[in-house]
Amino acid sequence: MSYSYLSHLECPQCGEQYEAGAVQQLCVCGSPLLVRYKLEELKEAWSKAELSGRKADLWRYHELLPVSDEGNVVTLGEGMTPLLELPRLGADYGIARLMMKDESLVPSGSFKARGAAVGISKAKELGVAKLAMPTNGNAGAAWALYAARAGIEATIVMPQDAPKITRSEVALAGARLYLVNGLISDAGKIVAREVADKGLYDASTLKEPYRIEGKKTMGLEIAEQLGWEMPDVILYPTGGGVGLIGIYKALQELKEIGWVQGRLPRLVAVQADGCAPIVKAWEEKAERSEFWPDSATAAFGINVPKALGDFLVLKAVYETDGAAVAVSDAEMSAEQAKLARLEGSFICPEGAAAFAAARKLAERGWIKPHECVVVLNTGAGIKYPDSVQVEAPLLEPGEFI
Amino acid sequence: MSYSYLSHLECPQCGEQYEAGAVQQLCVCGSPLLVRYKLEELKEAWSKAELSGRKADLWRYHELLPVSDEGNVVTLGEGMTPLLELPRLGADYGIARLMMKDESLVPSGSFKARGAAVGISKAKELGVAKLAMPTNGNAGAAWALYAARAGIEATIVMPQDAPKITRSEVALAGARLYLVNGLISDAGKIVAREVADKGLYDASTLKEPYRIEGKKTMGLEIAEQLGWEMPDVILYPTGGGVGLIGIYKALQELKEIGWVQGRLPRLVAVQADGCAPIVKAWEEKAERSEFWPDSATAAFGINVPKALGDFLVLKAVYETDGAAVAVSDAEMSAEQAKLARLEGSFICPEGAAAFAAARKLAERGWIKPHECVVVLNTGAGIKYPDSVQVEAPLLEPGEFI
Repeated sequence: MSYSYLSHLECPQCGEQYEAGAVQQLCVCGSPLLVRYKLEELKEAWSKAELSGRKADLWRYHELLPVSDEGNVVTLGEGMTPLLELPRLGADYGIARLMMKDESLVPSGSFKARGAAVGISKAKELGVAKLAMPTNGNAGAAWALYAARAGIEATIVMPQDAPKITRSEVALAGARLYLVNGLISDAGKIVAREVADKGLYDASTLKEPYRIEGKKTMGLEIAEQLGWEMPDVILYPTGGGVGLIGIYKALQELKEIGWVQGRLPRLVAVQADGCAPIVKAWEEKAERSEFWPDSATAAFGINVPKALGDFLVLKAVYETDGAAVAVSDAEMSAEQAKLARLEGSFICPEGAAAFAAARKLAERGWIKPHECVVVLNTGAGIKYPDSVQVEAPLLEPGEFI
Repeated sequence: MSYSYLSHLECPQCGEQYEAGAVQQLCVCGSPLLVRYKLEELKEAWSKAELSGRKADLWRYHELLPVSDEGNVVTLGEGMTPLLELPRLGADYGIARLMMKDESLVPSGSFKARGAAVGISKAKELGVAKLAMPTNGNAGAAWALYAARAGIEATIVMPQDAPKITRSEVALAGARLYLVNGLISDAGKIVAREVADKGLYDASTLKEPYRIEGKKTMGLEIAEQLGWEMPDVILYPTGGGVGLIGIYKALQELKEIGWVQGRLPRLVAVQADGCAPIVKAWEEKAERSEFWPDSATAAFGINVPKALGDFLVLKAVYETDGAAVAVSDAEMSAEQAKLARLEGSFICPEGAAAFAAARKLAERGWIKPHECVVVLNTGAGIKYPDSVQVEAPLLEPGEFI
């Protein structure tokens, strides 16, 4: 058996194919590229039983990942995060089986580690020495850390309003860090110039094809953790939307190799009221979104006014009879507190947005009481200290309660 | 087979035994109690092969844990954290095989989650409704969150200088939070009074016997991850020392059931120059430590001037031919940066202390170049935003690098 069944890269827009053995960025038509595998061969060669002795990280699925030589794997132990039952919150929503895929338990405390692990490993395999990317914080932190482990130089540009802790992660990893007095779209322009001027590898969202492959492992894990059954609904907080595209891709690949059967889960793209381009497009039944002006939300990770992969997100939502839902910052905040009080988990605002959407969809009857629902919490609440206001009495030594 | 092979509680100081089916705190002689199992029976009934299909969390070792009924398990998916190879840092230290047990990948981002998961589960099994504890921050955060999931009311008292994010965790979980203008020893006095006045369950370090059992799983995992071999040296940042006591206990139990053979690893208790009571005791070959006045260190978790279990820590160090080492805050800070730059991991100051000690012991020749060394990183660096100073250029939109 091969370590990877990687075949080639393919454009989902124009169908053009590219060789996977060399650095590729976007398709000539401007679309992101998707990684294709030799699924027919893999179907014959691979069985679920082979997974049983493997480590509980995302590399257990290496046949469906793009790294050809195991020696190029750059890992910090990411993946196989808990899929937790939330019985008390489920009762509150009126959903029999509510689960959280908890992506706070990964290096750097955010699901961005998955994309970084696979993206950096493949970059190393391709001989990349220097890369650059814009970020809303968490992705830049993850890529800077994995790049350090790989010995790759990273240039990271982020809005000055991005979570402060992500600056520390990037700086400590020894990356070149720049702040911008603007949004991720402004950071993107700076990176584009830097990439063009210095011939860097462009690791911007979807401008390299491998980050999706890392994110896709969330879908593989959910299926394995449910005993190779699929849930009825998956809710995902959507900025760039890579995770949703990845989960959709993962489940399709699992279907093709015969490891799951039946209907795919209805995929729900969740956004913030203050930045909801995908929701607007979905409501208008459009194929693509439009740039969302003056975007604003406390859930910084989903403050993405225009996603390069918007058409792929919308396609996944349409084809699974899913939905796109926006929630307010106040709803997120309330849901974050609910999670902690009822289930003991301190989730990030983006994850809280997805929970708030689950509550709404259950209220509307779009989610049925008997359905099995998985909500993605994309990161640790501890990265967002300002999301909680604390008032506590201060005692002097010798004083008592 | 039983879910747990729990037998009884035993005092390591006077030998008194207690029944494990009722709430027990300290021994009448004042010593912490240790949990004992029916190891002879377990040796016959259990085999390593049975672990293979189990989930990658600490409950995979339920036979060696004190919860009798699986229905009482309160879990957030804690345990089976990565044991990472650190080849570049190892080369820097001159150690052939340097590894990090990375406890940042647990709920609440600190290894305190292990003690909380097992401690709260057992408290639930014993019918506890309300508990109280003093904390340097991370333990209180973990216990508050698990208590919320279990429906137990928690009262948490912490120094006002404890990491701010841990306040948020406690408050969000709905616990009763009090700050004290002093040290954890001052918080302890407040808790003792509250426990006495209100008849609460005292969850202070080692005042209930089950937290050690949670921490012990680090030792079980290290052995399993190394293929049931033991490393030569384990370094552990030591405040209350529960983890070190637990790892020692775990390896002894594994020896008794025949799952590991040979010499136990040399256990190293690492402290800060500004709070080194265990190191001082070890240097004086004493059985117990003395209260360390005016203690101070940036590694807040190991700012414990007098640990209730000091004699158990020292015993583990003496009996394994280990050592006790103090490092400066500046050394921790330098090591934290090294870890990020060379290996891509943002560790906590306490973990950095243990790495700084490994470097020292390698320089002194106490650790030999061919030895297999495991360093405990007890938590995520992201919980300590002030441990990194960042300066980054700020660009305006339209400006370039």
